[in-house]
Amino acid sequence: MKPVRKRANSSLSAEDRLIARHFKPLARHPGAFGLVDDAAVLTVPPGHEVVLKTDAIVGGVHFFADDPADAVARKALRVNLSDLAAKGAKPAGFLLSLVIPRSIDDKWLKLFARGLGADAKRYDCPLFGGDTDHTPGPATISIAAFGTLPAGTMVLRSGARPGDRVIVTGTIGDAALGLKLRQDRAAARRWKLDAAMRRHLAARYLLPDPRNALAEALRRHASAAMDISDGLVGDFGKLCRASGVAAEIEVARVPLSKAGRAACAAEPKLIETALTGGDDFEVVASIPPAKLSGFRAAAKRAGVPVTEIGRIAAGSGARFHAADGRLLTFAHASYSHF
Amino acid sequence: MKPVRKRANSSLSAEDRLIARHFKPLARHPGAFGLVDDAAVLTVPPGHEVVLKTDAIVGGVHFFADDPADAVARKALRVNLSDLAAKGAKPAGFLLSLVIPRSIDDKWLKLFARGLGADAKRYDCPLFGGDTDHTPGPATISIAAFGTLPAGTMVLRSGARPGDRVIVTGTIGDAALGLKLRQDRAAARRWKLDAAMRRHLAARYLLPDPRNALAEALRRHASAAMDISDGLVGDFGKLCRASGVAAEIEVARVPLSKAGRAACAAEPKLIETALTGGDDFEVVASIPPAKLSGFRAAAKRAGVPVTEIGRIAAGSGARFHAADGRLLTFAHASYSHF
Repeated sequence: MKPVRKRANSSLSAEDRLIARHFKPLARHPGAFGLVDDAAVLTVPPGHEVVLKTDAIVGGVHFFADDPADAVARKALRVNLSDLAAKGAKPAGFLLSLVIPRSIDDKWLKLFARGLGADAKRYDCPLFGGDTDHTPGPATISIAAFGTLPAGTMVLRSGARPGDRVIVTGTIGDAALGLKLRQDRAAARRWKLDAAMRRHLAARYLLPDPRNALAEALRRHASAAMDISDGLVGDFGKLCRASGVAAEIEVARVPLSKAGRAACAAEPKLIETALTGGDDFEVVASIPPAKLSGFRAAAKRAGVPVTEIGRIAAGSGARFHAADGRLLTFAHASYSHF
Repeated sequence: MKPVRKRANSSLSAEDRLIARHFKPLARHPGAFGLVDDAAVLTVPPGHEVVLKTDAIVGGVHFFADDPADAVARKALRVNLSDLAAKGAKPAGFLLSLVIPRSIDDKWLKLFARGLGADAKRYDCPLFGGDTDHTPGPATISIAAFGTLPAGTMVLRSGARPGDRVIVTGTIGDAALGLKLRQDRAAARRWKLDAAMRRHLAARYLLPDPRNALAEALRRHASAAMDISDGLVGDFGKLCRASGVAAEIEVARVPLSKAGRAACAAEPKLIETALTGGDDFEVVASIPPAKLSGFRAAAKRAGVPVTEIGRIAAGSGARFHAADGRLLTFAHASYSHF
């Protein structure tokens, strides 16, 4: 391959025009300088720190090439927002690195920018700057997101202590089942899903629903937390390792959606998919017992469903107990790209 | 294309192992939490702000697939450091989004991490976190870099005023000539370059030399500045537009390297390549006359060569004058990927 850079025909390059047309309207924060400078400025409130996160999504790997462009944009931002939520940070803004094949047209970009703008507004997380490039490969969207919080209060993975309760938000496994469904449409009949259930699982894969509304409650009450992006079993295992603790989890208490319950009833082995599949973008956290009721009340005020699924113990390793007391083992704890 | 995520065979995923082996040694800053948490924390000195920048480089577009992995890593970081330098910010750290084809092996990654680590140390810009993914396309490295500076002191594109002197750092056009040379090896003979000149131009394309040593001097003395990544003519044109000014530039004063001078002497039309080609990663800045001697002294202390090439005027449009007084026009002001 030879690097070839195309020349522009006017004093405003095509890249400048693309940015001005599609992305400048999103850069309303004064620190973004309307995207006409080389860099942006983020002001941090006194006594606060910046929480930094980057995550990329790649066409054909994290999303389908024919997914709607607005959903792709929103997914790219939301996978990062989900981490800020779990860490207890308030979104402050993001940088966008957009690498696209030449086959992507203006209509796609317009829709992409519209989706991105809608979520930037929804989560109060403005675009600060970015970079656009062409690639002979698939569309690749890397976002670096920034949040702020009072200094020293980021919720780590490493703070869980024996006796803490383990909670998860929302429902687990929908996105992994939604992906399976998309790859094998016949599965919907085997799993006895009605149209609403199919739509629910598909939507949960297409677009995560990050729990930023819960960030402040987590920051005030959680001893440890992380978002679940690669499956509950594997990700919670990482939290236990980082904290140097064990845990007892009751699988029967893990919240499943109506569609998830239907699928697992039809094919019981799907519970493994639900527990180890990726793309939940829910939060798993440990809450000291004394803070549990305060946390529950705060979660209720935030409108985020939370479910207690077990507790932290001394030792090492998270154990998942079936309803009959049997200990579940998993061939693969989580998805991995490598 | 169908998203497929591979399952890992152990509780530590292959991605975790890759990160632990190659990148954890680079994450020495306490805010990076040894890359075992979901996010990092950046502490900003009181009264300071964060300068944010992201730039991606794509295999086959910004670098050759067979470029040494350590040079690829360093280029990915340095193109971002160059912006921090031009804006007057002190590097504080960076996030890495590394998207690679499966053909990339452990040896490549080891070399990549070594190059990245060397520059993180050299520029005092530690790795705070990152993300690794596979792609069916070429290696794509997006870096988001952060700098800090006293609040309100970022050097903008928009501050140039009539009468200000225009300066550039280093020499202009080497990287563009180096790229031409790499694409057409016979050119070296036509251009009458000796081996040292060939090596100089090739090295300037392979690896930029960002002017971070000059950041403080720019912050104290420059009315406007930007780094030259897409050619002096086009980039300086943007600075003039953002500032609402014109400029008179004397092409004979634009500093060329010995190799650049030799090439332009052999093929006079190459001056257009030098002035409009990309990848200089030098700085162009406007300096008020009263601050010029202070700036020159500070640049000398920083060890960065600076050359006055013209001055800012009232009006609009940067005019480039040849030695004979003729006004140069350029078919293409700058490189663009679009």
